[in-house]
Amino acid sequence: MLRSSSTLAAMRTSRSLKFDPVDAAREVWKSKGWERAASGMAAITSIMRAHQLFLAKANEVVRPFDLTFARYEVLAWLAWNADCGSLSLSQIAERLQVTPATVTNAIDRLEADDLVRRVPHPSDARTTLAEITPRGRRTVVAATAELNSRVFEAVNLTKAEMESLIRLLVKIRVEAGDFSTNGTAL
Amino acid sequence: MLRSSSTLAAMRTSRSLKFDPVDAAREVWKSKGWERAASGMAAITSIMRAHQLFLAKANEVVRPFDLTFARYEVLAWLAWNADCGSLSLSQIAERLQVTPATVTNAIDRLEADDLVRRVPHPSDARTTLAEITPRGRRTVVAATAELNSRVFEAVNLTKAEMESLIRLLVKIRVEAGDFSTNGTAL
Repeated sequence: MLRSSSTLAAMRTSRSLKFDPVDAAREVWKSKGWERAASGMAAITSIMRAHQLFLAKANEVVRPFDLTFARYEVLAWLAWNADCGSLSLSQIAERLQVTPATVTNAIDRLEADDLVRRVPHPSDARTTLAEITPRGRRTVVAATAELNSRVFEAVNLTKAEMESLIRLLVKIRVEAGDFSTNGTAL
Repeated sequence: MLRSSSTLAAMRTSRSLKFDPVDAAREVWKSKGWERAASGMAAITSIMRAHQLFLAKANEVVRPFDLTFARYEVLAWLAWNADCGSLSLSQIAERLQVTPATVTNAIDRLEADDLVRRVPHPSDARTTLAEITPRGRRTVVAATAELNSRVFEAVNLTKAEMESLIRLLVKIRVEAGDFSTNGTAL
């Protein structure tokens, strides 16, 4: 599974540091006597920095589709994880960990681009559903192909490392309340 | 190192899902025949979700200090990783992976709160330095104590798991251009 990942390597910019800033911060924490917090600080800061890098890359890849990665995620949920291609706005907020206002803005923009349309809920008049359009389906398929080849397949970890990373992140996501497992083994 | 982490557990909200959305997406990817991309998608999406959770928690913890986590990070770099407590604005942008405009906004706000002041570079008239004030030093120490106890020490991983997570993230951060290692062993 070790692949050359020239695309991600191309993310290197002149802003690339000559030292690991997380490691530098960790040394500070140790020198201050904050040993107990040092590794947690390093883990969380590493997550935040990795997030920044991948979000920037993902946004760049979906920009030609007039999407942000956040709007892409809305489309992907509607296309593939929703009954009949529709979800209520509050279901979208829940799944994407964002505020209702953020969902409203995303849906406004997707609707203006004819990728999504608002439809009334068949049995609950107070609920509005977002439904993906045929154009939305074509767009999410095309954007996914680009994300797969340029971002997701380019993660340079072995299969075992990838599983290990996903498993460790599940553990802290559950602890932080991302989802509940009802005693499912991690 | 296994600790009860009541603080992070308290992040659980009614928004907490009853299923792992990353795993659900991964099943979709597999069912579409995108096997090669599925684990990378799951890893990156996990990083993004963990980021959201920890950033929300860190912002909440530093809010009583009139800080965001981003402004806290500027103060921490100035307090502990800068010669004489000052860095140029471009050095701050580089270390925090943000745009110059973002740094300017952060420094404006920190200066208004008397936590940082702008000073001329002693030998380069075109460069402005940000210097932490005595009030800035007191604030970053107090905010760090809160972050350490309520966020960083509350990460519920064993010591070995924490090291594994940090190491895996180093690998993908280097690949994505966060910093260069000059052949240093990972």
